[in-house]
Amino acid sequence: MNKISIVGAGLVGEAAAQVIAREELCRELMLIDVQGDLAQGKALDVWQAAVEAGSDTWVYGGASAELLQDSELVVITAGVPRKPGQSRQAVLSTNLPILDGIMQDVNRHAPAAMVLVVSNPVDVLTYRAWGISGLSRNRVFGQAGVLDTARMKCFIAEETGFSVRDISALVLGGHGDSMVPLMRYCAVASVPLSHFLSQQQIARIVERTRQGGGEILGLKKQASACDAPGVAIAKMVDAIVNGRNRILPVVAILEGEYGRTDIAMGVPCVLAAEGVTRVVELALDAQEQVMFDHSADQVARDIEEMRAL
Amino acid sequence: MNKISIVGAGLVGEAAAQVIAREELCRELMLIDVQGDLAQGKALDVWQAAVEAGSDTWVYGGASAELLQDSELVVITAGVPRKPGQSRQAVLSTNLPILDGIMQDVNRHAPAAMVLVVSNPVDVLTYRAWGISGLSRNRVFGQAGVLDTARMKCFIAEETGFSVRDISALVLGGHGDSMVPLMRYCAVASVPLSHFLSQQQIARIVERTRQGGGEILGLKKQASACDAPGVAIAKMVDAIVNGRNRILPVVAILEGEYGRTDIAMGVPCVLAAEGVTRVVELALDAQEQVMFDHSADQVARDIEEMRAL
Amino acid sequence: MNKISIVGAGLVGEAAAQVIAREELCRELMLIDVQGDLAQGKALDVWQAAVEAGSDTWVYGGASAELLQDSELVVITAGVPRKPGQSRQAVLSTNLPILDGIMQDVNRHAPAAMVLVVSNPVDVLTYRAWGISGLSRNRVFGQAGVLDTARMKCFIAEETGFSVRDISALVLGGHGDSMVPLMRYCAVASVPLSHFLSQQQIARIVERTRQGGGEILGLKKQASACDAPGVAIAKMVDAIVNGRNRILPVVAILEGEYGRTDIAMGVPCVLAAEGVTRVVELALDAQEQVMFDHSADQVARDIEEMRAL
Amino acid sequence: MNKISIVGAGLVGEAAAQVIAREELCRELMLIDVQGDLAQGKALDVWQAAVEAGSDTWVYGGASAELLQDSELVVITAGVPRKPGQSRQAVLSTNLPILDGIMQDVNRHAPAAMVLVVSNPVDVLTYRAWGISGLSRNRVFGQAGVLDTARMKCFIAEETGFSVRDISALVLGGHGDSMVPLMRYCAVASVPLSHFLSQQQIARIVERTRQGGGEILGLKKQASACDAPGVAIAKMVDAIVNGRNRILPVVAILEGEYGRTDIAMGVPCVLAAEGVTRVVELALDAQEQVMFDHSADQVARDIEEMRAL
Repeated sequence: MNKISIVGAGLVGEAAAQVIAREELCRELMLIDVQGDLAQGKALDVWQAAVEAGSDTWVYGGASAELLQDSELVVITAGVPRKPGQSRQAVLSTNLPILDGIMQDVNRHAPAAMVLVVSNPVDVLTYRAWGISGLSRNRVFGQAGVLDTARMKCFIAEETGFSVRDISALVLGGHGDSMVPLMRYCAVASVPLSHFLSQQQIARIVERTRQGGGEILGLKKQASACDAPGVAIAKMVDAIVNGRNRILPVVAILEGEYGRTDIAMGVPCVLAAEGVTRVVELALDAQEQVMFDHSADQVARDIEEMRAL
Repeated sequence: MNKISIVGAGLVGEAAAQVIAREELCRELMLIDVQGDLAQGKALDVWQAAVEAGSDTWVYGGASAELLQDSELVVITAGVPRKPGQSRQAVLSTNLPILDGIMQDVNRHAPAAMVLVVSNPVDVLTYRAWGISGLSRNRVFGQAGVLDTARMKCFIAEETGFSVRDISALVLGGHGDSMVPLMRYCAVASVPLSHFLSQQQIARIVERTRQGGGEILGLKKQASACDAPGVAIAKMVDAIVNGRNRILPVVAILEGEYGRTDIAMGVPCVLAAEGVTRVVELALDAQEQVMFDHSADQVARDIEEMRAL
Repeated sequence: MNKISIVGAGLVGEAAAQVIAREELCRELMLIDVQGDLAQGKALDVWQAAVEAGSDTWVYGGASAELLQDSELVVITAGVPRKPGQSRQAVLSTNLPILDGIMQDVNRHAPAAMVLVVSNPVDVLTYRAWGISGLSRNRVFGQAGVLDTARMKCFIAEETGFSVRDISALVLGGHGDSMVPLMRYCAVASVPLSHFLSQQQIARIVERTRQGGGEILGLKKQASACDAPGVAIAKMVDAIVNGRNRILPVVAILEGEYGRTDIAMGVPCVLAAEGVTRVVELALDAQEQVMFDHSADQVARDIEEMRAL
Repeated sequence: MNKISIVGAGLVGEAAAQVIAREELCRELMLIDVQGDLAQGKALDVWQAAVEAGSDTWVYGGASAELLQDSELVVITAGVPRKPGQSRQAVLSTNLPILDGIMQDVNRHAPAAMVLVVSNPVDVLTYRAWGISGLSRNRVFGQAGVLDTARMKCFIAEETGFSVRDISALVLGGHGDSMVPLMRYCAVASVPLSHFLSQQQIARIVERTRQGGGEILGLKKQASACDAPGVAIAKMVDAIVNGRNRILPVVAILEGEYGRTDIAMGVPCVLAAEGVTRVVELALDAQEQVMFDHSADQVARDIEEMRAL
């Protein structure tokens, strides 16, 4: 890919930039933030780090919306993170106008770019970004489940002692309470997790994954996780840039899949050169369906509230 | 790891050397062959290729058994490959004395080294090497299923169009007719293969995997596959060198697992710094059990014949 | 390497941890900080990021000095960074007692560990750490020039348009004013820089490298560079862990080299499994000698001041 | 890059295919040989090896010239290697019609493709391929010096003990007798080689590099080097595919550079997305000029002889 832009030079944007630059996922990487100097300073640092690792990717930064020009993919990480005790609506009311402004810039300067939304609440904002973009749903999507899956892999590795290279996992829905783990699909080298762990151990893994972001926020106090979110973003970017046809959990606009329409939800999707080329619809069992519906109903309510803002 | 030796500078030994050197899986790599000049020439070539890729691994070659000295791991690829139409016994009667000679050299010059057997018939020769070594079973094992699994992943990728990064597969038993595919454990991003493919398509994949080596031999005519076997060897070496606790299909000595004793069979094992630290025993369904027993009975017969040689 | 500890979970420590974990430079990585929760939170994040990249390195964090136990290498990044306008002495008087405390912990819990000092002022603190450690000079050293060199490569790439993979550069001395660039040794694919650039362009590159850290601090305002310093640390760690015998600019204790004794200075060294195995002594021309002496005199004065504290 | 074709499925073509596929330098790699089955068999093996390493590159093989369709880059490795004692002209008279046939196929099926010639004698055949192609000189070029340089780096590493990551070297001219080493440009971490080695040691390195191909052929007897040539090809392909602007020794058509015209010679070139974008013209000293002229005169004579065939 020739050019990727990341809007939002906070810790997550910077972490994503590092991995994208180091892995040479594009020829030119642009880091954009209302604090233009900050974006420029971080861009310099990211560039110098990538160069030391042998990368020929150019990294630039600044504040102007015109820097979006010619981007083929725009990653949106701008906005405030949810603080402990803060309501979903409070975060939304802060981040919604930020997203709206960015999407207007994207429409003006890079109208054909794919858009990857990372800012929270990610399902509502992905839905919003898609609406503003006027693009087909394959070109606007969000990150949530790749990170949750990575965390679950970590906790499975810790509990079993096996190499992370052999561990696979799958989650639906959003972060936290609304996450729908599909534990029957979690495996080590294709062997179901239940072969190695008790139900109690598995339940512990699920619970810790649910709280994955909160655990780190609780420890860091001043800031949320950034390194693993950065790698999660880069993994999605890699699937697109290299046209891999990967199946990854993606926040996608549903058009009837899983019985839902007019909503953005975390579901397994095929990610390829053209973005989300397919929603993979899995048969859920009764318990999973309850959790999925609970999660979807929450997002639907959030979207309603968003419309009222 | 400090030193690894590969005995047998044929195409497979050379291919394995390339990957091991390039990935810096040891500080010093020794390529040993009765044709000492050939081993030396290939070692030079492999070294120069690795250096171009930034590797600091030293690669040497020669004929003398003393070159085994200080090896922590010995990979045995020496011997003739099975030719079309040749009986198993014919191959065995040629390769058995070759293996015996090598194991005597190993016992003399690197008695504490782990031994990875690749020469065919791999299950019988692994069993034999273990017997000669006097080592515990965790230190002598063979390669078969890692290659079969890789091939199955290829054919799944071809049939589904999905990224190989998301495909997992598992086979038991030996190459070819005696391979026992565990298709219920084959998945794409944790989603069972049956979600994407018909039974007919899956059967085609199984059949092509079974014939995987033969397909290439039939096309190349003068020589068997070497590149993928080389990578398969390197993958096992990597698991050991980096102490990963990976679950990989390994030809291991069974001590009661899967109802068998005094035999070497392809089964999922945990591969770690100390070699095979555990045989993973899966519950087989009726059909799988029939295939597994068929495969094990064949190996048992081969071991009998070997004793008679 | 089995275990590496990083003391100081600031941005630089975290960035170094990320690269070390991702590149699997050790089996276990410990992040230690007086703010134990912060260290633990960042360790979790770094671990989850590394796992997503396929790494099997375990990452832990905490506050207790006992966590240093069994470390083979300790990287010290703790301390406050120099703020704009702050005197060298002010930074030193803050960071010296911090370093002293850490070195006492190292002596108690990991007395045989190599020590890589990154905290500023790095030359003085490296000298101090060496004194406290009681180790031979090959086991205590500091990072400065690897980062400066990386930055110089960036600016050469920008000025020439050539791939960073072909650019080599070399600096002596410390960061900033005391840096001694050896421009006659800067080349693109072995061709001296002067073939491609005017003296004016080269002078601009030197000047910008000198101000490299300040440029980023000036832009980020609240924080210094972290990403490129992190990669620079990892590059030195890699040379040691893989026993590469690399020639890198290292802050090393001089014992007569370059006409100096009882001082720590940035000079080219061979970095190998046992640490600094050799100081490479280059013949300097008159102008370089003046700059080197200026730099060394400054460090000597700083060491005097340190003794007075 | 979308599609690359390699014509010639001998050992060098196969080795190049392996590295290109493993490093995902294109989405689709085609291996073409008059022995279509052989090409198909090797393609399968290379594909399965790449997949095991996580690559999503598709590899195909066959005999039909139509398989060239849509190639953006064609690598030509077909032809017989020079045997011990064989004259240059004998090799040329065999390989010339092979090259001519391939170039006619390229003109018909992939007329816009860049062409990288590897078959020997590489300078004459590069010149010929360029003539047939009708393309500008930036799109038709050959491999010789990247391999020689890699070998020289190996011998420098061996003689000094330093990491290959810090060694840089540069040669002009062709393989063997006509190679023009530029030893004053050979360095370790930017420090000239003469700092570390005696003139005698350097002379030994030069001589061994000159004989680099012969040394391996003499040892392998039945076959020339293949692994390092394969990596050398991949390195040039990588520079093009990733638009790196690398300076590499390339067999390029000279248009006045180095005082020569109407000839193909090994000279340092900038290799970028559009191929050879610039010949880097170095000032040679008297001795180097003599060697260069000797080398160029030889190629000029070979081109004359070619015209007479």
